[in-house]
Amino acid sequence: MQKIILDCDPGHDDAIALLLAHGNPSIELLAVTTVVGNQTLEKVTRNALAVARVAGITGVPFAAGCARPLVRDIEVAPDIHGESGLDGPVLPEPTLALDPRHAVDLIIDTVMAHEPGTVTLVPTGGLTNIALAARKEPRIVPRVKEVVLMGGGYHGGNWSATSEFNIIIDPEAAHIVFSEPWPLTMVGLDLTHQALATPSVVERIRSIGTEPAQFVVELLEFFGGTYLEAQGFAHPPVHDPCAVARVIDPSVMTVRRAPLTVELTGTHTLGMTVADFRAPAPADCTTQVAVDLDHEKFWNLVVDALERIG
Amino acid sequence: MQKIILDCDPGHDDAIALLLAHGNPSIELLAVTTVVGNQTLEKVTRNALAVARVAGITGVPFAAGCARPLVRDIEVAPDIHGESGLDGPVLPEPTLALDPRHAVDLIIDTVMAHEPGTVTLVPTGGLTNIALAARKEPRIVPRVKEVVLMGGGYHGGNWSATSEFNIIIDPEAAHIVFSEPWPLTMVGLDLTHQALATPSVVERIRSIGTEPAQFVVELLEFFGGTYLEAQGFAHPPVHDPCAVARVIDPSVMTVRRAPLTVELTGTHTLGMTVADFRAPAPADCTTQVAVDLDHEKFWNLVVDALERIG
Amino acid sequence: MQKIILDCDPGHDDAIALLLAHGNPSIELLAVTTVVGNQTLEKVTRNALAVARVAGITGVPFAAGCARPLVRDIEVAPDIHGESGLDGPVLPEPTLALDPRHAVDLIIDTVMAHEPGTVTLVPTGGLTNIALAARKEPRIVPRVKEVVLMGGGYHGGNWSATSEFNIIIDPEAAHIVFSEPWPLTMVGLDLTHQALATPSVVERIRSIGTEPAQFVVELLEFFGGTYLEAQGFAHPPVHDPCAVARVIDPSVMTVRRAPLTVELTGTHTLGMTVADFRAPAPADCTTQVAVDLDHEKFWNLVVDALERIG
Amino acid sequence: MQKIILDCDPGHDDAIALLLAHGNPSIELLAVTTVVGNQTLEKVTRNALAVARVAGITGVPFAAGCARPLVRDIEVAPDIHGESGLDGPVLPEPTLALDPRHAVDLIIDTVMAHEPGTVTLVPTGGLTNIALAARKEPRIVPRVKEVVLMGGGYHGGNWSATSEFNIIIDPEAAHIVFSEPWPLTMVGLDLTHQALATPSVVERIRSIGTEPAQFVVELLEFFGGTYLEAQGFAHPPVHDPCAVARVIDPSVMTVRRAPLTVELTGTHTLGMTVADFRAPAPADCTTQVAVDLDHEKFWNLVVDALERIG
Repeated sequence: MQKIILDCDPGHDDAIALLLAHGNPSIELLAVTTVVGNQTLEKVTRNALAVARVAGITGVPFAAGCARPLVRDIEVAPDIHGESGLDGPVLPEPTLALDPRHAVDLIIDTVMAHEPGTVTLVPTGGLTNIALAARKEPRIVPRVKEVVLMGGGYHGGNWSATSEFNIIIDPEAAHIVFSEPWPLTMVGLDLTHQALATPSVVERIRSIGTEPAQFVVELLEFFGGTYLEAQGFAHPPVHDPCAVARVIDPSVMTVRRAPLTVELTGTHTLGMTVADFRAPAPADCTTQVAVDLDHEKFWNLVVDALERIG
Repeated sequence: MQKIILDCDPGHDDAIALLLAHGNPSIELLAVTTVVGNQTLEKVTRNALAVARVAGITGVPFAAGCARPLVRDIEVAPDIHGESGLDGPVLPEPTLALDPRHAVDLIIDTVMAHEPGTVTLVPTGGLTNIALAARKEPRIVPRVKEVVLMGGGYHGGNWSATSEFNIIIDPEAAHIVFSEPWPLTMVGLDLTHQALATPSVVERIRSIGTEPAQFVVELLEFFGGTYLEAQGFAHPPVHDPCAVARVIDPSVMTVRRAPLTVELTGTHTLGMTVADFRAPAPADCTTQVAVDLDHEKFWNLVVDALERIG
Repeated sequence: MQKIILDCDPGHDDAIALLLAHGNPSIELLAVTTVVGNQTLEKVTRNALAVARVAGITGVPFAAGCARPLVRDIEVAPDIHGESGLDGPVLPEPTLALDPRHAVDLIIDTVMAHEPGTVTLVPTGGLTNIALAARKEPRIVPRVKEVVLMGGGYHGGNWSATSEFNIIIDPEAAHIVFSEPWPLTMVGLDLTHQALATPSVVERIRSIGTEPAQFVVELLEFFGGTYLEAQGFAHPPVHDPCAVARVIDPSVMTVRRAPLTVELTGTHTLGMTVADFRAPAPADCTTQVAVDLDHEKFWNLVVDALERIG
Repeated sequence: MQKIILDCDPGHDDAIALLLAHGNPSIELLAVTTVVGNQTLEKVTRNALAVARVAGITGVPFAAGCARPLVRDIEVAPDIHGESGLDGPVLPEPTLALDPRHAVDLIIDTVMAHEPGTVTLVPTGGLTNIALAARKEPRIVPRVKEVVLMGGGYHGGNWSATSEFNIIIDPEAAHIVFSEPWPLTMVGLDLTHQALATPSVVERIRSIGTEPAQFVVELLEFFGGTYLEAQGFAHPPVHDPCAVARVIDPSVMTVRRAPLTVELTGTHTLGMTVADFRAPAPADCTTQVAVDLDHEKFWNLVVDALERIG
């Protein structure tokens, strides 16, 4: 069992990531925390709880975190995720109550309460919560098993020529998370632009025939429309579940070790995740990037999880 | 009574600031929090507790905060404050126990527990704790009465040509604190380089004849030596108590309203506190800078506080 | 006799600088070169020739230089100098023909044709021409006697909170000029904001009763109006002649030696002329800044030059 | 016939580029200009003249240009090119005399002397000369047919994680050249790392049996050794001739149109050539990048040129 904390900003692909984490039997979901990103904290938190109801998640603490990035002004992505942050399907009223703790404290408490080396952090939004947790309680850093995050890209961005949304919305937080000595896998655009929800994928999910599967289909239909219009994608890239899939089964993607850092001062490169591929990674390099996705294996994991949720 | 939270990194002048805050009858010291700066968090926290014993402070919570800046690497100032952060006098063993809370939470809890508009934050070190508190609990911002901080300088620095130590060690935190809409008074080098501990000042303090006064004399003797050697000052500038003095009696210094921001990207100006004096400050400007010190009135406050401590 | 090359962008105060240089008997004007700045190259070049006619300048080569800054986009100052760059008086048709050489080559040829250590460069606009000359022919650098420039400011700007127009319009060029090892005196806003054309100054000039004096009065009336409106000055600061005055009589202002550099990357400080006053200037420091103006002596020089022009 | 000006810093691959340009019958070499880069200006200029003698070049003006970058300090590459800039073969004494003009003026004069749209600039070193020419005489920009340069890389660098040597040694000059509206083809590392001098390539050249061919073999042997040691290449990438080959026969490589800019302020990305591939290039995009090399066709061109030189 892989114990994970999912730190997210649902968000269409975050919602699918949550469903994948909940439905897959090898994942133990310790906590879900939310952070401003695809939409405001209020909206993404409500969305997370709505998805929990769709998925039938109970017994997992959900906590709201940071309402704005560390240094930069808030930037949200309504062109991709709509005004609610999860436009498309009708969202049910949440039934789960939020944990009273701040997400930063829930992350710290959860990591400190488990054995060292057992908890994986899976951030799929901006890295504000994770950065604050590392700064508030530095002892979590050596206790965390690994950080497997969706964000960045070593050969290009989506919010600027070089930079991806989750990183550029809070580059200082990303810099903090990328600089700590925990093992870190960056599942970036290089990988997630391979995780396309093609018509046959959508059809496979639709044919599951359950309410959560139908929910996902409606998410993908909306997401496909905005991705086509805003970024010219024929089929939408489903970013966030890739990070969860990596935790479930590392063989779902290849990775490459390389030093990684986040650019904080570039005129054209702010928020770029700079990977240095010029030489073999040094022995003490703790960072790696995702390179090639096994498309079939990935979607099998998603479909399997949805079937198990029932 | 002015309710304050003193966030500090003792540090010789922080120690005197704490003595001033404790001894002055118009200050109610709600909490003392520590932050990495003049020395490591461990050292400055121990120093704060040692000073509390010298001053006879009881019933005030002391809490340790951030052990490192948000983004930058740790930089401490042993050339000014020695290896302990408070070299010079023999430090007593602390008797006070630390509050179990993190400084960030103590700050948040304290501000939220008091009436809006009643608590003044007085940071005299790097701004990491204050920045994290504002990000973790944004509701403190409109509740705080004012931030009166020692740091920066509108016409020059001490750690670079343009930048002062407290700001440059964590410029991102400073940027956060300077950008929030609370009233903020920057008591910077422009002001504090007027707060010189001249021989006659030292003599006045020595003649008080108490143990805390003697402690201050020994601090000033050490501090005077390092300031002479490291920065060429004939008499040491006693920065941090100036911020406390401003809270006690605003007439101890003149101020000027001006938009302020912290430079985060300059090659030669990183950490500069940029004041815009080109035009009268706009009506919604919430920041001001300290300009001229009433030297006599300032040292009278310090002497008076030491006399009251006894 | 002080041999100078005046590199300018007339511009009201450039025009007065040219009149001062021409009228003062201790100045030998070797060449006048123009550069984009207060207005486009075409306009400032025409203005320079028109001022030459007003002043009766003959036998001095005038050459046009760079039409745009090195890296940045063109920025001109019509709010201060009007659409022509020299609004106010009626400008006569130029009679002087331009030298066929590029200003950069005229500067190089002139410096190389005179004895080493005899030619002073007096730039009163952006530093594009001077920078290109230094890069194209590095041998001019040790041959130049001194660079006495109007630009910058060690304690504030006029085009941003920290930066002055002549520097910020081509900061890379300024960086080049400030970094070469020639002696350099920066006559910046700190000094030139003392060179105010008060009503009594304007009256003194008007009472000279000549056509050039009347021309200056009309320049000052227009300039006074735009400075009042754009920057709130009661009386306009007449920047550029201060640099010429410094060459004529160094005692017209006090100076202070300090390392100087130009900030090229700051978010809020781009184009700032950073002076390091923290310690005495090192022995090999070749840069100094102008500090205090002898207002009476300065205007006496201007009046005297106008009287001599007749 | 393609009229070109080769602006270079020989440099092993520059030398081969010069031989290719001279030997290929479809190239008319109008001028050769040198610029600081792989070694000092003095050394690369001497090397260019030595290569001219090896190749038997006569009747082509050679001129020396800028001895240092615009803003940055000089950085040369002895680890790759040796102390002379062309270590390996014994260099003959030059017999050609330098043109008395500065390279910047030779470039300007040559472009202005030919019909608009007929002269291609082929820079294979830092872009200081080209940038200065464009700033000194902006009329060359619309007259130049195209700039086909070796430098940069859209997916990684060799002098930093993101930046290539020719660009990072003078990023401001590169920014100038990339920003002018002339058609520009960037033949960067993405392409030139495909132009490997494999053993079979070296053998083909050796078997030509002429003195120039033997000269190239000795260059490649030295270059191969330093590339192996300094950057871990099994076979050395022969960068600069790729740009010449592109002019000779565009089909030697595929290209992709994309907006390009040079990063001037990044902490980790200074000198990066940022290509924006997020969307189809806009209609007015004048820049393109080289993508895939026809390895066989490329080396055929080099061998053919050497055979023709005899």
